[in-house]
Amino acid sequence: MDIEKHIAVVKDFPKKGIIFKDISPIFLNPNAFSQLIDELAASVRDLGATKIFAAEARGFLFGAPLSIKLGLPLVPVRKKGKLPRETVEVSYGLEYGTDTLCVHCQDVQPQDKILIFDDILATGGTAKAMCSLAEKLGAEVAGCAFIMELSFLKGRERLNGVEVRSMLIE
Amino acid sequence: MDIEKHIAVVKDFPKKGIIFKDISPIFLNPNAFSQLIDELAASVRDLGATKIFAAEARGFLFGAPLSIKLGLPLVPVRKKGKLPRETVEVSYGLEYGTDTLCVHCQDVQPQDKILIFDDILATGGTAKAMCSLAEKLGAEVAGCAFIMELSFLKGRERLNGVEVRSMLIE
Repeated sequence: MDIEKHIAVVKDFPKKGIIFKDISPIFLNPNAFSQLIDELAASVRDLGATKIFAAEARGFLFGAPLSIKLGLPLVPVRKKGKLPRETVEVSYGLEYGTDTLCVHCQDVQPQDKILIFDDILATGGTAKAMCSLAEKLGAEVAGCAFIMELSFLKGRERLNGVEVRSMLIE
Repeated sequence: MDIEKHIAVVKDFPKKGIIFKDISPIFLNPNAFSQLIDELAASVRDLGATKIFAAEARGFLFGAPLSIKLGLPLVPVRKKGKLPRETVEVSYGLEYGTDTLCVHCQDVQPQDKILIFDDILATGGTAKAMCSLAEKLGAEVAGCAFIMELSFLKGRERLNGVEVRSMLIE
């Protein structure tokens, strides 16, 4: 499918000089959204993942239907303080300050092969932190999948050695 | 289905004295998750909604597959500063301070009938704010749906006059 048809281009968000690719118009078209999930599922099935990591919050919008489509358990990756049970966490640098991502320890076993999912691959900081979460729990990273990759930010290089599947590369 | 089988009970989260009902174990069981979405869809189909409002972030995990199942457009309801295009917003009181929820103005038309979805109905503040967002854009509220309702917090009373569907009432 032509994903670009469902992307709104917004200038100066979140700050001046940035051209933001807003993927949210696809949610207004359930047929296109469903087709996108089917194509996303088809693009990662060969990776042999046993579980999916999806990042809060936009990653949940695609990760949840992907989990149902693939019949694979979904592990929500959340900001610190949101998950009620014992977690493992990884902090990573942002432009200003740091962010921390967490998963419930019980959600991952050492034999798992994790598909890392997020909607957009930019600098790769979030995806790299999600890989580290999987590895901290002794699991293997089966690969990383994204709806859209902003290739000029070189996130793929940061994920060096991990299979990366992007539905749209800009 | 027996939803309670998939709920973890966590004491003293987010603070001492609160017994938190954690619905996240269901995401580890894609068959149960899929069945839950089917039953959720069946429970709201008669409301005749034209669009679904789902609240960030846990609401996205159910709202996205519900949108695909019902074939209805999904409108993500987000915290302030997350949506890149023109928004309408509603602020509401929390125990301490206030919170603000937003939707893209373009996502709603006056003829829309909105299904308000969130995972849990507690005091009803979030759901009430989502109803106000729909009404601010001239749309009608078709009803509110939740996975779990904590009836002792009387959220249903706060949504007075709106049809409320909860899959599990505690």
